[in-house]
Parts: sequence; structure tokens; C-alpha cells
Amino acid sequence: MFIKERLFTPGPVPLPPQVIKALGQQIIHHRTPEFTQIFLEARENLQKLLKTERDVIMFASSGTGAMEASVANFFRKGDRVLIINAGKFGQRWKELASVYQLKIVDYEIEWGKTYDKERILQIISEFPDIKGIFVQHSETSTTTYHDVKYLGDIAKKLDDCLLVVDGITSVGVYQVYPEELGIDVLVTGSQKALMLPPGLSVLYFSEKAEERASKSDMPRYYFDVLKEAKKQSKGQTAYTPAINLIIALNESLKLILGEGLDNLEERHRIMAEATREAVKEIGLKLLSESPSNSATGVYSPAGIDADQLRKELLKLGFRVAGGQDHLKGKIFRIAHMGYFDFMDVVQVIAGLEMALKRIGYEIEIGKGVRKAQEVILENLG
Amino acid sequence: MFIKERLFTPGPVPLPPQVIKALGQQIIHHRTPEFTQIFLEARENLQKLLKTERDVIMFASSGTGAMEASVANFFRKGDRVLIINAGKFGQRWKELASVYQLKIVDYEIEWGKTYDKERILQIISEFPDIKGIFVQHSETSTTTYHDVKYLGDIAKKLDDCLLVVDGITSVGVYQVYPEELGIDVLVTGSQKALMLPPGLSVLYFSEKAEERASKSDMPRYYFDVLKEAKKQSKGQTAYTPAINLIIALNESLKLILGEGLDNLEERHRIMAEATREAVKEIGLKLLSESPSNSATGVYSPAGIDADQLRKELLKLGFRVAGGQDHLKGKIFRIAHMGYFDFMDVVQVIAGLEMALKRIGYEIEIGKGVRKAQEVILENLG
Repeated sequence: MFIKERLFTPGPVPLPPQVIKALGQQIIHHRTPEFTQIFLEARENLQKLLKTERDVIMFASSGTGAMEASVANFFRKGDRVLIINAGKFGQRWKELASVYQLKIVDYEIEWGKTYDKERILQIISEFPDIKGIFVQHSETSTTTYHDVKYLGDIAKKLDDCLLVVDGITSVGVYQVYPEELGIDVLVTGSQKALMLPPGLSVLYFSEKAEERASKSDMPRYYFDVLKEAKKQSKGQTAYTPAINLIIALNESLKLILGEGLDNLEERHRIMAEATREAVKEIGLKLLSESPSNSATGVYSPAGIDADQLRKELLKLGFRVAGGQDHLKGKIFRIAHMGYFDFMDVVQVIAGLEMALKRIGYEIEIGKGVRKAQEVILENLG
Repeated sequence: MFIKERLFTPGPVPLPPQVIKALGQQIIHHRTPEFTQIFLEARENLQKLLKTERDVIMFASSGTGAMEASVANFFRKGDRVLIINAGKFGQRWKELASVYQLKIVDYEIEWGKTYDKERILQIISEFPDIKGIFVQHSETSTTTYHDVKYLGDIAKKLDDCLLVVDGITSVGVYQVYPEELGIDVLVTGSQKALMLPPGLSVLYFSEKAEERASKSDMPRYYFDVLKEAKKQSKGQTAYTPAINLIIALNESLKLILGEGLDNLEERHRIMAEATREAVKEIGLKLLSESPSNSATGVYSPAGIDADQLRKELLKLGFRVAGGQDHLKGKIFRIAHMGYFDFMDVVQVIAGLEMALKRIGYEIEIGKGVRKAQEVILENLG
């Protein structure tokens, strides 16, 4: 019998109809006044999203491209940097830092946990020459939230240190205002809370970062931030831009800014909280001790392979993500970013209960759903 | 905060992505071999849907247009006809019969009930000259199913009587095979279980009906069945066809025939049953004593205006239909036809519970949802 497939993966995410419509149009040429106007509008909307008047640049790349740009533009070979390495994407910072020959202080953290503030203080007193702190605002692999404000304050106290934040799954979920949080470099990607297909990344950089970029000895061409910033402030790009994604970005930012950034954050908080409470009510354990509102990681019950459970969920129409690396088969992840509202949470929880039942887990059907409904009702007032 | 709108109205209904994509294309001209091929494919698919090799014709009109064609083509002024008048659409048959000056035997039935077989036998023994029986297979206003097979057998026993069936909300929900059911004229519309926008209607007619059409003295031009049948068998239409709806019809029929008509009927049965059981579990009363699987009509609880409840449901993202005429404010209707699967039922029931709670109805949240989940699980096996 016919079953719809519903994406609940933390990227790609379901797209709003307005975005689909914008994507399904004939292409326009990018070296035209028409595109320049669209591009400048997108740029301005991104500035509103990040509450800044500084340059916010776009690359035709996935988020990892903007992560590479963050390393290649704002550092010099041999600079010492601190990596908050708490998951798959923390590792990616480390790999990038290694490729560009930075000296790495690797603060490895058990997956599912966030950093310890005391430990950070120890590290900076041991290495006062740290030139950069790299962190995920939301570590997608472990669905963990890391407090960036604290790190921003630390970076400011140091002599010449930039806070570099992967906001790929936090921008559009939280209110991420780099100037208030002390973020010097912030990157995000299109296929997460911006509700677009993959292929567009975004990079913000502070005045301090700009100064550093002008002194960097790193090789970079495609991801040259200052070159792009200059071009993009005039509504053009150094290389061919992701035309239809930028057109669609204006649609998704219209929705996001139309909802209001406080409402947006609140909605994601409620969706994530309803999911967490429901999952606990079912008797399952959360992966993260510091859960992010962009996705919820959950341990599969003892004796049940998470990937088998995911297959069962797919039969009911729900595609959720699995675990990465050593978490493979142990956890599954349900996204909250994307074209979702409260009742989508209720639906996926109902599906989770039914999939668990069908796979042989002892469960009182409806218990988790009720909890999700209650959390939503309490929050709606 | 952002809330998605979900259509649960018995027409229009949510469209499958494949249909949306087909509709969003540049128009092609209908007097071309290209369109002829598409048209003949649609015609053949409709024949498969109705398990017939006879003519199945399409009009660029809403379902009511095909209802008018059913009266204007197959009868003569003064013919006596029996109207199974059990709701808003039963009344429509009566209005049409009256406009075309047929002699009406008005079998008025309380809304929410189906006909009584004994009463039918009485009527035909009193009026053995009845030339037509008009019925809704699924009366949308009261969400009531009428057995057409019984009426088909009656029609066959009479001297020269056609069974005319409004299948607007039954075709695509049930397996409706006119030749097996004894239906002489069957109409349906695009914006119901065919999962298309409004504007296309479909009409099947039997050999017996064809013979009658050739003798009819009724005025008709746009809705001339024999003229269209002749044209359409060759892949053209007498007047401009609903080009993009016909293109999209091929997409929706690909989905429908791909699922299989037995699976399609079974899925709708399960969705409707899960809804009915859940609604009863919540403590609400069904409108119909003979419920249709295309939509479920439910009485609002005492003291709660159904239209207020609908407004509350809309705040949570669910658009359901209200009652018509004397049922206005008393009932609401949840559709099962359209681009729906099992988990949509769970979702709308969850929304119903939450809307009831918010409007002040004493309700144990989650009870109905659990029931819907259980019915689905039992049926999935």
C-alpha cells in the first residue's frame, strides 16, 4: 500500500513549497542586473538573519567548503588552534586544521557531551598563544549543543584569537548573532535550517577576522573570502554562483524572517523538547547530555539494532538518520530543522512507537505521542 | 509561530508531488499528435480504473457538469426517475432532474442514513415505469455510503431503467467497476480521490445508456456525451480540453494503478476505520450510520460549535470541512481521499484531540491517537 516518504534527517531536510516553486523555474543568467538585485536581496536577508551589517558571503559549495574557507583565510601556517572535538564535525575541523598545517590542541570529548569550562581555562593558560578556537554550535553527529558565548568571551580575553563556529545546524534553529556571541567566523549551509537543497554555503567574518585574512599566508583561490566579499558587496561573485539556490534562498529567508527569529527559535525549542520528552516517556535514552534543538539523537533499546529500527520506520514513511562511526547501529537521529511544525513531531513519535512495536519492543502504544501532545499544548498556552 | 496548513477537506484534496510537477509545466497545444497520445493514454488509464473497455469521456468541468450530462443525455422530458435523496448531493440530482423536467419520485432520507431496501421495492412496485435511479455512491455531505450493487440489480429487473451513479467521492476510494455493479452512468471529478485540482470531470456510460442517448430529446451542447465519445475515442475533444489536468491525470492514475486497486481500496478502508475508531474512542459520535471511506463526518460534542472547533484545528494546521445546510455548526468532516497515508490519520486525530482540549472539552489526550495507531498496526499485520 502507498506510503509517503517523510524526511526527518538532519540534512537534507524537507523543503517549503515556496522554495520548490522557486527552484522549478527557468534559469536566469548571473551576469545581469536582474540577478544582481536578487543577489543583493539575499545578502541583505542573510545580514538580517545574523543581525549584522558586515559582509556575509556565499559560496557555491556544501558547508564543508565554507569550513575550509574558515581555515584557509584567517590563519597562518603553524598557528596554534584549539579544536573542540566532540563528534564527526569536530573531527572535520581537526582534519582541515591538519591539512593547512596548523598546530592543533585537540580537546577530545566523549560523543554526546559538551566541553568543560574548567578544562577550557586550563588549556588557554597552558597555551596562551592560541590563535583560534574551532567549535560546532550544534554538533550534528551527536545532536549536541555547545555554548559558543562562553568561548567568545574566552577568545576576546586572549591576545589574538578568533572564535570560528560551524553553525551549519544552528543558524535558523537558534538566534545566532555573531556580534553578540563573540563569533569571528561563522559558517552555515543551505540544506539544513535554511530549508534549501545542498550546494550553497554562507560565511560571516568579523573585523578582527578580516584583518587576519589580509595577513594570511595560506593558499586559497575558490574560497578566497576577501576577493568574494569585495565582489559580493556589489552583487556579483568571483565565480559562477549557485543561481537557483540563491533565488530560492530569498524565498526561504522570507519565510524565516516573516516568522520572526524569536518565534523561529521558540518553535524549534518546542519541537525538540516535545521529541525529547516523548522519547524518554517511551523509555528510550537520549544520546546527548547537552541536546541541540536541531536534531535529537536517541539510543536504540537494548537488543534492537538502530538500523533495523530505521528500516521499520521507513516502512511507515519516516526516514530518520543513523549513527556515524562507532555509533552506527546504536542510535538514530530525528531532525527538527527543515519545513516542520509541531504536528510533524507528533507524527514521527507515533511512527517511532509503531515501528518499535512491530520490531518486537515492549511498548505501550500512544504514551510518547501523548507526552509530545502535552508538551506542545503547555507551550502553546 | 509557523504552522503548515494541511488540507483534510473532502475536495479539494492535497496533491501528490508528481501531480504538482506535471501541473507546473509549460502548456502544450491540444490539436497536436503529442496531446492526442497523452489524451488516449489518460482515456485508457481511466478504462483500467473502471475496469471497462467502453467509452469513458472527460469534460472540462467540475463534477456537477458531468452530473448535468447524466440527466441531459440519457432521458426524455417527462421520464419518471427515482432520486435517492439523502444529502446535499442527492438534492443536486433532484434539482437537475427538475430543471430537465423529469417526473421525480423523491425518496428523501434523513441525512446520515442510507436507503431502506424494502422501501425501494415498494417504490418500484408503485412506479414500475421508472426510467432511472439516481444515487450517490458516497454522499459527501453526510459521509454516507450507499450500496449501488443492490440498485443495479433493481434497475436490471425493471423494463427500461438506468442506474445513474455519482461516484465523485467513491471512484479512487473504492473499486468502482460499473459493469460489475450494474451502473449505467457513472460520473466522477478530478479534485477528489483522483488527487487533481478541480476542473476535470469523467463520465462512463453503458451500452443501454448509449441507446437511450441516441433517443433523448433533451437540449445539450457542451455536455453532449455521444459527440464527445466519438471525438475522444480518436484522442481529441469537441471543445478545448483541460490540457494540464489531463497531463496530470496520467500522473495520478500512474500512482493509483501502480498501487493496485485492491490495495487502494484497502488503504482507504484502514484510514477511514482508524479515524472512526479513534473518534469514537475520544467520545464523539459519527454522523453516518453507513459511513463512507472517503470522509468521516463527526458530531461536535454538546456545547461546542463545530465551526469554532474547526477554527481551533486550523490554528494547529488542519483544515477540515464543516457541515452543510442544517448540519452547519453541528458536524465536521475529515477526508481520507487525496494524497494521504496512514500516518496522516494519526496526525489529524492528534490535532483533533489538542483542538478539543484547547476549546475546553474534557479529554484524555492521546486516547484517540492510540486507538488510530492500534487499528493501523492490526491491519498492517
